Amino acid sequence: MEPNTNSLSHSKWRSVLHEVIFEADTPVGKAFDIVLLCCIAMSVIAVMLDSVSAIDSQYGRILYHIEWVCTILFTIEYILRLLCVGRPFMYAKSFFGVVDLLAIAPTYLSMLIPGSQYLLVIRLLRVLRVFRVLKLAYYLDEASILIQALRASRRKITVFLFVVLTIVIIVGSLMYLIESEESGFTSIPRSVYWAIVTLTTVGYGDISPKTSLGQALAALVMIMGFAIIAVPTGIMTAELTQAMGQKKVSTQACPECSAEGHENDAVYCKFCGAKM
Amino acid sequence: MEPNTNSLSHSKWRSVLHEVIFEADTPVGKAFDIVLLCCIAMSVIAVMLDSVSAIDSQYGRILYHIEWVCTILFTIEYILRLLCVGRPFMYAKSFFGVVDLLAIAPTYLSMLIPGSQYLLVIRLLRVLRVFRVLKLAYYLDEASILIQALRASRRKITVFLFVVLTIVIIVGSLMYLIESEESGFTSIPRSVYWAIVTLTTVGYGDISPKTSLGQALAALVMIMGFAIIAVPTGIMTAELTQAMGQKKVSTQACPECSAEGHENDAVYCKFCGAKM
Amino acid sequence: MEPNTNSLSHSKWRSVLHEVIFEADTPVGKAFDIVLLCCIAMSVIAVMLDSVSAIDSQYGRILYHIEWVCTILFTIEYILRLLCVGRPFMYAKSFFGVVDLLAIAPTYLSMLIPGSQYLLVIRLLRVLRVFRVLKLAYYLDEASILIQALRASRRKITVFLFVVLTIVIIVGSLMYLIESEESGFTSIPRSVYWAIVTLTTVGYGDISPKTSLGQALAALVMIMGFAIIAVPTGIMTAELTQAMGQKKVSTQACPECSAEGHENDAVYCKFCGAKM
Amino acid sequence: MEPNTNSLSHSKWRSVLHEVIFEADTPVGKAFDIVLLCCIAMSVIAVMLDSVSAIDSQYGRILYHIEWVCTILFTIEYILRLLCVGRPFMYAKSFFGVVDLLAIAPTYLSMLIPGSQYLLVIRLLRVLRVFRVLKLAYYLDEASILIQALRASRRKITVFLFVVLTIVIIVGSLMYLIESEESGFTSIPRSVYWAIVTLTTVGYGDISPKTSLGQALAALVMIMGFAIIAVPTGIMTAELTQAMGQKKVSTQACPECSAEGHENDAVYCKFCGAKM
Repeated sequence: MEPNTNSLSHSKWRSVLHEVIFEADTPVGKAFDIVLLCCIAMSVIAVMLDSVSAIDSQYGRILYHIEWVCTILFTIEYILRLLCVGRPFMYAKSFFGVVDLLAIAPTYLSMLIPGSQYLLVIRLLRVLRVFRVLKLAYYLDEASILIQALRASRRKITVFLFVVLTIVIIVGSLMYLIESEESGFTSIPRSVYWAIVTLTTVGYGDISPKTSLGQALAALVMIMGFAIIAVPTGIMTAELTQAMGQKKVSTQACPECSAEGHENDAVYCKFCGAKM
Repeated sequence: MEPNTNSLSHSKWRSVLHEVIFEADTPVGKAFDIVLLCCIAMSVIAVMLDSVSAIDSQYGRILYHIEWVCTILFTIEYILRLLCVGRPFMYAKSFFGVVDLLAIAPTYLSMLIPGSQYLLVIRLLRVLRVFRVLKLAYYLDEASILIQALRASRRKITVFLFVVLTIVIIVGSLMYLIESEESGFTSIPRSVYWAIVTLTTVGYGDISPKTSLGQALAALVMIMGFAIIAVPTGIMTAELTQAMGQKKVSTQACPECSAEGHENDAVYCKFCGAKM
Repeated sequence: MEPNTNSLSHSKWRSVLHEVIFEADTPVGKAFDIVLLCCIAMSVIAVMLDSVSAIDSQYGRILYHIEWVCTILFTIEYILRLLCVGRPFMYAKSFFGVVDLLAIAPTYLSMLIPGSQYLLVIRLLRVLRVFRVLKLAYYLDEASILIQALRASRRKITVFLFVVLTIVIIVGSLMYLIESEESGFTSIPRSVYWAIVTLTTVGYGDISPKTSLGQALAALVMIMGFAIIAVPTGIMTAELTQAMGQKKVSTQACPECSAEGHENDAVYCKFCGAKM
Repeated sequence: MEPNTNSLSHSKWRSVLHEVIFEADTPVGKAFDIVLLCCIAMSVIAVMLDSVSAIDSQYGRILYHIEWVCTILFTIEYILRLLCVGRPFMYAKSFFGVVDLLAIAPTYLSMLIPGSQYLLVIRLLRVLRVFRVLKLAYYLDEASILIQALRASRRKITVFLFVVLTIVIIVGSLMYLIESEESGFTSIPRSVYWAIVTLTTVGYGDISPKTSLGQALAALVMIMGFAIIAVPTGIMTAELTQAMGQKKVSTQACPECSAEGHENDAVYCKFCGAKM
């Protein structure tokens, strides 16, 4: 019976590990998650500071060590996750599985290609796990409303983006014909870039029209941008209002008159007075 | 009976051609549309790259050939469209008919006026046919909600644009009086251009007030722009909510008078009083 | 009886004049309004072009004449308006009365103070009469919804503007302490100007933080601006939705069950089926 | 009985003082508040003007005196507030108590640390008391709707800000890898600063991409910013609509169970089923 016991103890060991690493309900699991988040935050800040030459020249060695320690810890954690999960391959292919891998790859890669260690900021995506540590249900609920609204407005946004793309390419080409190269409109792609900068009301000013005709067209684009910015906002708001509204209305129908649309706290039907 | 048969076969030939070119339901029609879209995308990209001097000097010849091949293909397609459609003149006058013509004209025109080939990007408008290839009904439905909302807010937007126009001209003139020419406010039209750049929150910074009074007025305009940007968004959102809400109207028809458009909570038909 | 007849014919002459000048229902009144609008547009464009030195040096004389002809015409029209209206003093004090006076004053003033003729662009406000010529009722209806929404959100906007003012002054002062004078933060008022430019997302770039701490604070202000811009939009949208919604719901109550909230096209009560 | 009388008169003295300083209902209380607001406004303007070198060199002495007079007045007022309030320690810990202390501290601090007197602008926060002087109830009502909407959208905004933070760090790091140091992307923190400037559509233009790849990524970020700016607006609007909608709930209480919060179209109490 040894293999069985072994398998049992093995199975128990895995289930404990699973609880610590994947759950945030138990004190140990929560502590693990908080330590993990601190490591992630620390390593991302280390990578960011490493890029500042003044800091790098002075604390470069320490930052380098932090980076490697974090990477090794995350590698161990990644292997443990694969070990204790039921279907390792499924996990490796999931969103967080891929993020976990991407979060350790750049350090090893930087030994071959210098500079690639800056990609380590992708580790930040791991912090999205943070919502598990906080009062999970609330935040997921709110996030799900946002995602639901985004999903519902998917097609409208596609239509909208397509129209925007058409506008910026045509406006960019017109500007290329109108403005001289000295103003910065050296090619159509660059003019399209200017059109996007203008339409989105970012307005760097690195490229800006100099001729009267160009400025008139630019003014037209800005007024259009004014109107156009209203569209995604309108879509998003309308969808959010719907998504939030759906949460508020009970799906319960009156047993007497079958009327629907009751509020969640309704005890009696508001149309016929029957008990619900 | 030969002419008749001829006419019949001719009619059949036209109907097949019509199905291939104008419909996207059959596999052949869909394939035609996809090939067409690729051609359009390719030719627009070719025109855009052609304007980049570094690429033009190296691949100019290839791009030139792509341009001509696409133009000839589109010319043939345009003629076929005119041939197989019932009323060619009606089609030529329609939105897509005009776009199809504009999409081939610049290349021929560029033989007379150099530089006009950049207008070929107008071809991009042809890509709007893309929605036919995608799951048509869904996207047209969403687009129609957007268009319905835009149409409903037409008059409000007119009133709004008129007020904005009045504001920018008056503010521009005031700035012309306040600021010196060195700051870039060289004429009222240019000051109006600045006012539009500021009110729409684009803010290039190519023209910006230098005096204290000018900066105070600019700050006022910005705060106003802050409030003004809320208006089109508000209009658009309110109309979109309504346009989307109308979709929520019950699809139930009255069993008595067949009237539609009842609210979801209606118990009796609001037109004839029959129980629903 | 001569004075009476005289008074009668005088009264008739005034009423005809009133109809021509103040109404837009009769063909003559409409024609008068259209001619007036053209004059206004022409004179505003003349003033704007007059400020462009290249145009002024060539066509200055013509523009000067247009300006004086328009001013004299408007002066005659202003006097006629005062003559044919019942209470001239009431009219002179009304919004359009003041605008009419301001629209002619700058030309006469420019004889004393050179440069003041550019204030003539205030004439543009007269163009607001345009809505009378167009299908009046529709536009006034839409404008009244906008104004109603603005009035309803008056207090919320006041609270909001006050909070924004407090934020920009405090942020501006902090930036003045953090940033050196070389970055353009030469005084608190100028720093406050920068804070407004940043918070409203205009972003000229004429003043921008150079130190790390300043950039961090600026980033914070931007993110805040991101959230803050949502507030007036939200207020405006919510009020507009209400203002528009109120137009859509009939105020009629069911004679049987007294239920309210019926749609405008309802013939029978949707709750009890009684004829309304 | 002298101590008692003394205590009584003392208590009366305190209650009169409390009414003058803390209430705005009586004429004296209102007058006190208005004088206070003028002092605050004057002292904040004095601090701001003091930072303008041209004004400081000429009126520096006067501004210095205004500052000290205001500070001493505010110090006396602060002490009086502590004296006449029931629990001085509670008041000192409250929002306005802390603001009152911060509003006088910088002047005394400026004797030790020069420059710290500019922190006096924090006095402006005291002006928030202004709403008490205006028709209080109305404004507090409106402010409470805004605050209620902000509180309700708290979690959605948190999720949103977290996503935005993740985006700007990753985009900033990518830009640091793509763009050279000459374009201004000298470190990851600075690139993140650029990403925030761009995503919020501020667009100073002090740092802007020069390479084609960088501009393409920037264009992508802008389009994203376009969509992202819709999210807080949507959240805010949806919450505001709800917060304002709740005001629309019938004020009718059930005659049976006295429950409130019924919808306007309710015929029967939804809690006890009694006819309303």
